[in-house]
Amino acid sequence: VTVRRTAAILVTGSEILLGRTQDRNSGTLARSLDAHGVRLERIVTVDDREEHLRAALDGLLAEGHDLIITSGGLGPTHDDRTVAIVAEATGRALVLDEPVLAEITAIVTGYAAQRGVPVERLLPGAIKQSMVPAGAHVLSPAGTAPGVIVPGATTVVVLPGPPTELAEVWAAALVHPVLADLISAQLERRILRIWSTPESTVARAFEALGGDDHGTETSICATRLEVEVVVRFPPEARVAGNRLADGLVEEFGAAVYAEDDLTIEARVVAALCERGLTSGTAESCTAGMIAARLGNVPGASATLRGGFVAYANDVKTAQVGVPAELIERHGAVSAEVARALAEGVRERLGCDVGIGVTGVAGPGGGSEAKPVGLVHIAVVGPHGLGEALERRFPGDREAVRTNTATAALHLVRLLLQRLPAGA
Amino acid sequence: VTVRRTAAILVTGSEILLGRTQDRNSGTLARSLDAHGVRLERIVTVDDREEHLRAALDGLLAEGHDLIITSGGLGPTHDDRTVAIVAEATGRALVLDEPVLAEITAIVTGYAAQRGVPVERLLPGAIKQSMVPAGAHVLSPAGTAPGVIVPGATTVVVLPGPPTELAEVWAAALVHPVLADLISAQLERRILRIWSTPESTVARAFEALGGDDHGTETSICATRLEVEVVVRFPPEARVAGNRLADGLVEEFGAAVYAEDDLTIEARVVAALCERGLTSGTAESCTAGMIAARLGNVPGASATLRGGFVAYANDVKTAQVGVPAELIERHGAVSAEVARALAEGVRERLGCDVGIGVTGVAGPGGGSEAKPVGLVHIAVVGPHGLGEALERRFPGDREAVRTNTATAALHLVRLLLQRLPAGA
Repeated sequence: VTVRRTAAILVTGSEILLGRTQDRNSGTLARSLDAHGVRLERIVTVDDREEHLRAALDGLLAEGHDLIITSGGLGPTHDDRTVAIVAEATGRALVLDEPVLAEITAIVTGYAAQRGVPVERLLPGAIKQSMVPAGAHVLSPAGTAPGVIVPGATTVVVLPGPPTELAEVWAAALVHPVLADLISAQLERRILRIWSTPESTVARAFEALGGDDHGTETSICATRLEVEVVVRFPPEARVAGNRLADGLVEEFGAAVYAEDDLTIEARVVAALCERGLTSGTAESCTAGMIAARLGNVPGASATLRGGFVAYANDVKTAQVGVPAELIERHGAVSAEVARALAEGVRERLGCDVGIGVTGVAGPGGGSEAKPVGLVHIAVVGPHGLGEALERRFPGDREAVRTNTATAALHLVRLLLQRLPAGA
Repeated sequence: VTVRRTAAILVTGSEILLGRTQDRNSGTLARSLDAHGVRLERIVTVDDREEHLRAALDGLLAEGHDLIITSGGLGPTHDDRTVAIVAEATGRALVLDEPVLAEITAIVTGYAAQRGVPVERLLPGAIKQSMVPAGAHVLSPAGTAPGVIVPGATTVVVLPGPPTELAEVWAAALVHPVLADLISAQLERRILRIWSTPESTVARAFEALGGDDHGTETSICATRLEVEVVVRFPPEARVAGNRLADGLVEEFGAAVYAEDDLTIEARVVAALCERGLTSGTAESCTAGMIAARLGNVPGASATLRGGFVAYANDVKTAQVGVPAELIERHGAVSAEVARALAEGVRERLGCDVGIGVTGVAGPGGGSEAKPVGLVHIAVVGPHGLGEALERRFPGDREAVRTNTATAALHLVRLLLQRLPAGA
């Protein structure tokens, strides 16, 4: 039977406890651990004070996890105590790692030249950052702080706090033999993303299929207008795992729109690219969110021509060509105006797929006929194809706008699925 | 001497440990606790399993915090065990709270009618959610789960997991006499937000002013292109606290742009509103982010007319009126094109303030002359006033785009500050 490894994360950062910054690292590590079949059991966040950090680390070591990952506290000053405390807690001396000192010295020499400061000022920090627990494996720095793997009954991985540095050093840690051995008993996963179906409906279907059995572990999570099902199983439970996943695919049919972790905007950009199609947006209540999300996908420029933020009604008319009398007759928040926005952007920008949205984001501006949260979305494409959706979203202004943008991207996906191949 | 209360947060949620959703509640609570002078010492996140939840709660109780706040695990099914475990850990029986049962019954009766399900199906859940620790104070539900305050040497506050419910029930908890008494020894704060100044420069100025003394506690945190300084002090250290804050204001002058927690977009919308001015955007690399951020401020429609996502060069020309030969001569990523975008949107939408941005967001598209991260931002306003900025931002595509949008909003702020009063 496959034994699942367990892990805990120790995040240090006073700014997080003061609510001034948000911890993004534990999410990055959590996703990665799950993808590697490791069960994350606990995340502990403490401030930078030595006694708090030590108590938290001792507590986690006592819990007997296979893996502890720390984030932060690796800076060049002596306030950054994580490595020293890990050395102490694991009963190891701090020793200077000559190869990493050479690496860091080269890096800070570059910094010093760039900023015009004498390199001597940065060398004490470089030496401090090169002190590691005796016998630890050192991972090259992404900034100036190296990562450290301390093997043992509990393997401790020490990572820098800046999110991009953490991601880079963690990627190196994952392929290091010590960790590769530890997490080699990898679980398999089936990810199913189900669009526009209530979580309770998915949960009932899952129970009707017999639920978890033979060592499968399934999570069902409603998020971003979709339900994400992840069925995890060790190789020996592959039949049971696939039976569950296939059963759900059969049950929900076309609503199962993805079996991976891609965002909907990445999926839309890829689908447009594949078909050689371009897109454009005309957004009222979302005011640019849809275009901004498409634009965040690397390579979006090949498929996104541009768009309009058509907030004021006369901008809808003058820039996107929505007839003023249409707005007058049906109101700015209407299926007709959403359609005219989508058609207008398609025509004015000469793009293949036009996206139009209009709605009442709130908190003001609602009426009995058009309450806060009411949105109309239209997508028009080649061959006269179109998709339209009217929804009333709950939640605050941000929730209404975000859900509207997500729903619009799904309509593009649905429209592209209906296009004849090669069109 | 003012004694600071301490707190810990216990977050439950398997989805967080699986990396499928992000915990937003601890940030909400952290900001609120700091604003009330409570020192948050630890955040612990565990999954929904009973033994994990119990071990974490026992651990936090043993640490002797004044306050423990739990988030999540209050649903209507018996998998949601937080209240029962808090009762057990604090040595109290679970008892039915009749008034809250009446409240919840009324709520679920409404749900049942809406969804056309028999109310009897929802009543067992209502009864489960009305079971609270004996002697606890019950806070009315925002969804169907009530909050609970269990007084004691450590006061335990039990809150529902959905972020909007948590925020609402926490607001009610804060004004409940038990908590109001506990956190009455409130610290005062001075918040200083310093634009475009390196964190190390601010830290050195802080040290030169003598640093923390007489019970002040200062945090310095670089985020969103700015440095946030929060000086916290008890009433008896007011002189020292104000001396520090005033010293920094004097040192950094106009770079100190705010003494509150407002976002830059909220500040810009308010400043536009105050002056009766309208705005518009013409965005290339940010592709709608600036408009979307302005549009997220309630009441933005009074000041945001709309904008263009001018991704393709011919869209810059045809829709925003950027001369094609300007793009040809200087390249799409240039100060000249940013300026033409800003002027174009101002003219085409007839708005008072035009915002234009263009840049290389990456990861592709960079060259030696125009590397990834290079952005040009221009803002033009009434009376021929204008602001322009060239920056090279580090980081990935999302970081470059987000920083560009933030910088553009700051340029609007700077331009509005230069406008003559009443203009």
